[in-house]
Amino acid sequence: MSTVAANIQDAAILQAVEDALAAAIDRRGLAPRLAEAMRYASLGGGKRVRPVLAIRCGLACGEGSLEALLPAAVAFEFIHAFSLVHDDLPSLDNDDLRRGRPTTHRAFGEALAILAGDGLQSLALEVALSSPRHPDRVAHEVASACTDMISGQVYDTLGGFPADTVADADRLRLIHRNKTGALIRGACRSGAIAGGGSTATVDRLTRFGEAIGLMFQVVDDILDETQTSATLGKSAGKDKAQGKMTYPAVHGLDRSRRVIESLHQEALGCLRELPAADPLRSMVDSLVTRTS
Amino acid sequence: MSTVAANIQDAAILQAVEDALAAAIDRRGLAPRLAEAMRYASLGGGKRVRPVLAIRCGLACGEGSLEALLPAAVAFEFIHAFSLVHDDLPSLDNDDLRRGRPTTHRAFGEALAILAGDGLQSLALEVALSSPRHPDRVAHEVASACTDMISGQVYDTLGGFPADTVADADRLRLIHRNKTGALIRGACRSGAIAGGGSTATVDRLTRFGEAIGLMFQVVDDILDETQTSATLGKSAGKDKAQGKMTYPAVHGLDRSRRVIESLHQEALGCLRELPAADPLRSMVDSLVTRTS
Repeated sequence: MSTVAANIQDAAILQAVEDALAAAIDRRGLAPRLAEAMRYASLGGGKRVRPVLAIRCGLACGEGSLEALLPAAVAFEFIHAFSLVHDDLPSLDNDDLRRGRPTTHRAFGEALAILAGDGLQSLALEVALSSPRHPDRVAHEVASACTDMISGQVYDTLGGFPADTVADADRLRLIHRNKTGALIRGACRSGAIAGGGSTATVDRLTRFGEAIGLMFQVVDDILDETQTSATLGKSAGKDKAQGKMTYPAVHGLDRSRRVIESLHQEALGCLRELPAADPLRSMVDSLVTRTS
Repeated sequence: MSTVAANIQDAAILQAVEDALAAAIDRRGLAPRLAEAMRYASLGGGKRVRPVLAIRCGLACGEGSLEALLPAAVAFEFIHAFSLVHDDLPSLDNDDLRRGRPTTHRAFGEALAILAGDGLQSLALEVALSSPRHPDRVAHEVASACTDMISGQVYDTLGGFPADTVADADRLRLIHRNKTGALIRGACRSGAIAGGGSTATVDRLTRFGEAIGLMFQVVDDILDETQTSATLGKSAGKDKAQGKMTYPAVHGLDRSRRVIESLHQEALGCLRELPAADPLRSMVDSLVTRTS
């Protein structure tokens, strides 16, 4: 099974995730307008980094099937989609463009965008609880990563850091660990748990997730400074315009690039003893070199 | 144990719920401003109908302890608090007053109110998953009731009913079953599950929850028409002012009062064979005669 599983192509995983996201919404018997806005917010776009990580981490444990990993994968993508819908709202980041299309509140109005985000969060938990292996542990990863992510969004948007967190570098670490780091770490952990990984393997993939979570965010911060909105499919340069702390703003571009390389190596190191980790290695490489 | 459990006073339950709500927020290591807004939104007010129902249903099964039922109870109260915070937002019901105090967005701003609601939802799931009995089933009750409640809010605020739901009475049933009914039903069910109820008992307490969920809403609709804002601690007469469908608006006041009495009897009937249901019976009686 492990050889077969590792041989699944990225395209097959992406299609399975897309189908599972749509099916979770469609079969739930939601208010039709709610379902429409939730589909808009979660389907037909995005890099699907979190669900693919969950699935690849699960398969790397050597015992999981794609199907058994879909609940964890779908749950994290719904949480991610929910966070984007609410972050884009006028009273938060006030963004008009996301994945190359109008943001959910621009397309459906603010009331429905708020409720669609809420519904994506609760549906994520329902789906996580359908995991055939350890539904309670998978769901706990989803809920706790979600709470941490919301803490990160509060730090990022409103500040109010703990009294002992004064230096910019420390505050930035708190933002990144929570805002992007928690979901990526949680996706890797939940995949490992749903994939039947041993405690040691779950720990290794947790450290892997922490390394690439920060790496992903530093790359994102650099792209926000150096790319156009058209390339990114979302508003570029917003972090700087809003005076938000970013890795290059706090540490400089050169040091940011060195940190990316060091996290890249750390991530690969965590994968060293896993049986079917080649696709994860390629994925990490492509996350470093991505341009959007 | 069942005799002792049934003898727990309401005041002791309310205090235990209040302490558990506060502890769940305080020990979570949240961003300080997020924690502050979540405390404001969930502590120091409210009738605590859902957590008390969860606990009383659990105790009525004869095997649960108060402590073992707190996770289910706290989870439903957090979901309820989250729903109030988001429902009160300017783009939804645009309310300034709740539990006799400024609504969360009036006190903390819209951005933090949105994020505090989000955080109450995810923390609810974390707490549900700490249930010592059946954490996955308890959490599923919380998440699925939450999704249904959000559907109900969409119907209530934005309409968009399914094509086969045309008559006002049918639409109202869809709103009530989801918007208020789902959480009350779920609170009863999750208490029964966490309290070790048999399948037959869980079914009976599900029907009990459905009856009092609708009863609670019809009473609420009548109070909104007949009481003042000062008595209610929230804006009275808003349903009518916003042209919302209510039970008395669709069926008239007389029929509404008869329906309350019939649901009251139905609820009591569901409790007939339970070992320790006296406190539940008193609770149902007081829900019928409440004036706020």
